[in-house]
Amino acid sequence: MPHHERYMKLALDNARAMKGQTSPNPLVGAVIVRENEIVGVGAHMKAGEPHAEIHALNMAGDKAKGATIYVTLEPCSHHGRTGPCAEALVKAGVETVVVAALDPNPLVAGRGIAILQDAGIQVITGVLEQESILMNEVFNHFITKKTPFVTLKAGITLDGKIASSTSDSKWITSETSRYDAHHIRSINDAILVGAQTVIHDDPSLTARIPNGNNPIRIVLDSKLSTPLTAKIVTDQMAPTWIFTTKQADEEKRAALEAAGVRVFMTDSDTRVPLQEVLQVLGEKNISSLMIEGGGQINASFLEQQLVDKLVIYMAPKLIGGRLSPSFFGGEGIRLMSDAIELDQLTVEPLGKDIKITGYPVYQ
Amino acid sequence: MPHHERYMKLALDNARAMKGQTSPNPLVGAVIVRENEIVGVGAHMKAGEPHAEIHALNMAGDKAKGATIYVTLEPCSHHGRTGPCAEALVKAGVETVVVAALDPNPLVAGRGIAILQDAGIQVITGVLEQESILMNEVFNHFITKKTPFVTLKAGITLDGKIASSTSDSKWITSETSRYDAHHIRSINDAILVGAQTVIHDDPSLTARIPNGNNPIRIVLDSKLSTPLTAKIVTDQMAPTWIFTTKQADEEKRAALEAAGVRVFMTDSDTRVPLQEVLQVLGEKNISSLMIEGGGQINASFLEQQLVDKLVIYMAPKLIGGRLSPSFFGGEGIRLMSDAIELDQLTVEPLGKDIKITGYPVYQ
Repeated sequence: MPHHERYMKLALDNARAMKGQTSPNPLVGAVIVRENEIVGVGAHMKAGEPHAEIHALNMAGDKAKGATIYVTLEPCSHHGRTGPCAEALVKAGVETVVVAALDPNPLVAGRGIAILQDAGIQVITGVLEQESILMNEVFNHFITKKTPFVTLKAGITLDGKIASSTSDSKWITSETSRYDAHHIRSINDAILVGAQTVIHDDPSLTARIPNGNNPIRIVLDSKLSTPLTAKIVTDQMAPTWIFTTKQADEEKRAALEAAGVRVFMTDSDTRVPLQEVLQVLGEKNISSLMIEGGGQINASFLEQQLVDKLVIYMAPKLIGGRLSPSFFGGEGIRLMSDAIELDQLTVEPLGKDIKITGYPVYQ
Repeated sequence: MPHHERYMKLALDNARAMKGQTSPNPLVGAVIVRENEIVGVGAHMKAGEPHAEIHALNMAGDKAKGATIYVTLEPCSHHGRTGPCAEALVKAGVETVVVAALDPNPLVAGRGIAILQDAGIQVITGVLEQESILMNEVFNHFITKKTPFVTLKAGITLDGKIASSTSDSKWITSETSRYDAHHIRSINDAILVGAQTVIHDDPSLTARIPNGNNPIRIVLDSKLSTPLTAKIVTDQMAPTWIFTTKQADEEKRAALEAAGVRVFMTDSDTRVPLQEVLQVLGEKNISSLMIEGGGQINASFLEQQLVDKLVIYMAPKLIGGRLSPSFFGGEGIRLMSDAIELDQLTVEPLGKDIKITGYPVYQ
């Protein structure tokens, strides 16, 4: 079915082009083909606006009758803001519907397809399914888990270090990598660091790219030691939320809140419980979270199996040192056979560096 | 000059095919072209046998007259075992000589070309020069420095570790990577580890590939604590040389020597001086040395700027741990701006792993 893949690829390209503008909806693209000619294309562009199929049907007009539609996600079956697309396809008289991925919500998956099949339409599923699932990895995760999709980003040397033995870390990676990392910041709803990073580096944690969206800044700060003079407290560039514990000082909390910071008290008197943080963020509709921690924060998320995706910028250089911090610190995993493996690994040159992405598979 | 490159590439391919069988001579290939037809090809196959140009001239016969010869290394000017190739080319009446790289020996570089030019032959140099230099990196290094070309090999996790916090290291990389590493062993004259590796892992350090050549096994052992029962002492699979210091026990030395091990005393009463080791190996005609050390041995060689090439097998997995050993341990480099950069980086998938090679550039 190479011709199926060709048209589905166009539908995926159209869907992907809307990245960052459809939230909280998924990316979806559609292509209508009749007698080997494309008669309509569409994509979902913005929440509240028509779904991809509707745009494509409008473009095709009468030519949709007897045509084949390629759609990257199972047509919806529910009467939402824009009505069920499956019914619209039936009404338009399409002959075949080719679907990449089923609806990620297990409660409704297959319902759209059932409507089509009940109306006598031929349905083909699974064409470029993996590409469609990957494209909507954040949406798929959030719709099913109700906690944010967690991306851990780190800029490291070839020997896995995030700083030298003297804590020097400027700069490990090239400007190209740092720009790319800023882009990832801009497509995440929130960015998380530990209080130590705030105290030592005083970062602004904004996405420094043109028209980049600034993520909400999340700080894990068990003792509420974030300085009132920190950039993230004073610069007003994006909301700052601090998660703390019962160790927090009440006066400090009041001062931070007076400065506009939102402080979340967790049910702990030792470390900030990560699972609870993710739960709260999910409730606040934060569907994507980027971790930019030091070795300890990274280790906590990895050891608790809470990282969904890893993005590594690896500089082709060596810094060495038994005591220089590695990007995954903490206690680590005891046995090599229990190591966290990375699935769907991608490795690509990026400027002078290597960009590596993968999806942790926990033992 | 794309056609020049095309023929030179064939010459390089022929040269490379002889890898491992020309020592102590370099790899050299030649191609003779007359009126757009290849009339002769050749390569240097074995020390004492004809050079590449001579094989190609013999194949071309009369057709060499007025032809162009592509040769990956400057034709020799000296009366060695096979006579000066430059003179043979003059005698055969070739019209043009295209050369990739000059002779690496600065004392004779350019002499072969001068002979050709004095005879009125057109000489073009620098065609695929870098490829030719890389192909003979070991030869070029040894001929000029008189110490072995040092390749550091390590199998690491994506976070730079060579073992877990519990010292578990079996296995980090996949079988494909380990096989590839055995191939690298087989093309090195010697392989070096520290005494700690011998004591803890009891490796045989042989090249476990069909018809693989076993390198000489070198151990750095300041206190001569290599057990008499170690495989490298008892298995007779390859010579074992131990470099030690004045801390060594005389009786232990006699026992190791009685077991067939060669023990080299260095001029030190603390750690084995690496520069002296390389000097001695060079004198013994060891032109290539592979380091398979732990974090400390690797760090010593890197910090003393003695590594010429790095070969990393990186498994797409994370083991973590502040105290887990990284492949580059030791003190490390203090400032990120002084980090060892890697030149001519290559990154390629190898089985499930990533193979990374590069040439350290020291600050």
